Amino acid sequence: MPAYKKRGSQTVVFEDTPVITSWASIVGPKEGQGPWGGDFDQVLADYMFGEKTWEKAEKKMLQEAINLALNKRDLQVDDAELILAGDLLNQTVSANYAARELARPFLGLYGACSTMAETLLVGAMLVDGKFFNRLISATCSHHYAASRQYRFPTEQGTQPTPSTQWTATAAGAVVLEWAGVGPRVTSATIGQVVDLGQTDVADMGSAMAPAAAHTLKTHFEDLQRLPDYYDLIVTGDLARVGMAIAEQLFIRDGLVPRPNYSDCGVLLYDEKQDVDAGGCGCGCAAAMLCGPLLKKMLAGEINKLLLVATGALMSPTMSFQGESIPGIAHAVAIEN
Amino acid sequence: MPAYKKRGSQTVVFEDTPVITSWASIVGPKEGQGPWGGDFDQVLADYMFGEKTWEKAEKKMLQEAINLALNKRDLQVDDAELILAGDLLNQTVSANYAARELARPFLGLYGACSTMAETLLVGAMLVDGKFFNRLISATCSHHYAASRQYRFPTEQGTQPTPSTQWTATAAGAVVLEWAGVGPRVTSATIGQVVDLGQTDVADMGSAMAPAAAHTLKTHFEDLQRLPDYYDLIVTGDLARVGMAIAEQLFIRDGLVPRPNYSDCGVLLYDEKQDVDAGGCGCGCAAAMLCGPLLKKMLAGEINKLLLVATGALMSPTMSFQGESIPGIAHAVAIEN
Repeated sequence: MPAYKKRGSQTVVFEDTPVITSWASIVGPKEGQGPWGGDFDQVLADYMFGEKTWEKAEKKMLQEAINLALNKRDLQVDDAELILAGDLLNQTVSANYAARELARPFLGLYGACSTMAETLLVGAMLVDGKFFNRLISATCSHHYAASRQYRFPTEQGTQPTPSTQWTATAAGAVVLEWAGVGPRVTSATIGQVVDLGQTDVADMGSAMAPAAAHTLKTHFEDLQRLPDYYDLIVTGDLARVGMAIAEQLFIRDGLVPRPNYSDCGVLLYDEKQDVDAGGCGCGCAAAMLCGPLLKKMLAGEINKLLLVATGALMSPTMSFQGESIPGIAHAVAIEN
Repeated sequence: MPAYKKRGSQTVVFEDTPVITSWASIVGPKEGQGPWGGDFDQVLADYMFGEKTWEKAEKKMLQEAINLALNKRDLQVDDAELILAGDLLNQTVSANYAARELARPFLGLYGACSTMAETLLVGAMLVDGKFFNRLISATCSHHYAASRQYRFPTEQGTQPTPSTQWTATAAGAVVLEWAGVGPRVTSATIGQVVDLGQTDVADMGSAMAPAAAHTLKTHFEDLQRLPDYYDLIVTGDLARVGMAIAEQLFIRDGLVPRPNYSDCGVLLYDEKQDVDAGGCGCGCAAAMLCGPLLKKMLAGEINKLLLVATGALMSPTMSFQGESIPGIAHAVAIEN
């Protein structure tokens, strides 16, 4: 018997279309000052969140976003049968330590900034496959924790290049259920790693754009669907440089004419904010999804959304060893 | 409608019992000199595997183990619909870069040394859920790549304490299919994070033992099964110090009298080899499973195996910040 939920080469369709019954987002001060500040559940007053380190603040954001998503639906943490989470920190410690506090069955995932889509699509498969009735998909990032891990010591105040992206301080969590009311996860395209040889870690948007184009093209081929099926197609964190390249690749592939395409890294901040090319980080797509985008779906302003979260899968160690930056993009279709 | 494949609080049972149709293991020189050297598919002559760095050697081991597992069943890489993999390196780069070379849909997972069980149980859910007919679950570790990331610069020649474990240089991969001939994955218990406050990163076995005990107790409760159901229960990489603690915890919980319990970290090396408390690393449980253990299942010497792979979920950064070591253990039942 064949896997009857698979379509084409990389796409799965959901029979029971798992429901996003609740969601929550927590963002940092800068994200709160952006154009969507009022659409997040919580805007932090500072980058510490009452903790002693940026890393512990990041972990607390993830933990609280999960709690908040459950509480908004009058649920407690014990009502979640499983937590799927990951983040950018070495050994995905934000997710690990948040899972320790939450004390629920836990599976850690790593997809760099594609993690929101990855946890969502794996979660949807586990619910649709009738393994769990209710689980959490979540991720987070913290600007200062990521910067000092991936780039330079923060205190050094290194001047970024214009193509550099600003890692979002943000966390997002969704409650995914077999039954309930809310937008539904209807299909997902699992990305493959695409690497065109870009080595500049100060320009990750360019490194990830080909993966976004590959996944998007595959998604439409696999489902024999046209881009105008969706009210909005939104990539994860290509930001301005990567988005411009992605748009060229989409046009080459006969896909996504504006205006129904945008990018979370472009959307998250106001152009006047000092974020160079735009936002990035696991929390970028997570907070945009679990804030403004799902809010618009609830209001019926968006009825069909395709989230194409993108990830740059290198590490500083591999970059030091001369390796280029592998990109990945996972697409998740969410429909009312 | 409830999730009908869930039992108790943390366990899932498989309806179609996905089949492990092929597997392969590649190990380093030291592992090849151990008691099971003849049971691995390939023993490396050195730690470089023709690459310029230990990290690239690790990635190549993973990639080749996957290729080998497919080739042993007369399959090519394109026959795998999905690759599930992860490893210990920051940003799971062994898995990411191996996935780049293999160019298949890819989901990265992070469970530290529990990753073989994590990729196996997630893979089993995705096959049983009818999303994929054939996928790969795989992981790896490399002694020298892990040592310099987690511990000290290798050239420094730091003296290990007796409780320190030796990260295995090893990779394992299984081909998991909806139909076929081979041992079957029948159930799995997804671990929750357990942390009793142990902070000594030179004694990870002690940190992980309580998680192993928690998962094992839950597995038997959830399935209303007794330990003697299994011919062998094997933890991932507690090694001698952790295994001794785990055995005490098992006895407290009324579980697992010897002789049907052992630990991959104890099994992998000969006592006379210089590995302190024993083996650890993602590759430890992976190579033991994809070498001697599945070979014994094929020969009918083991018919019911419970693999309880254990992971220590800290990072050096969190340890520097005074955090203790969270442990996790995932159990996968494999039966003829």
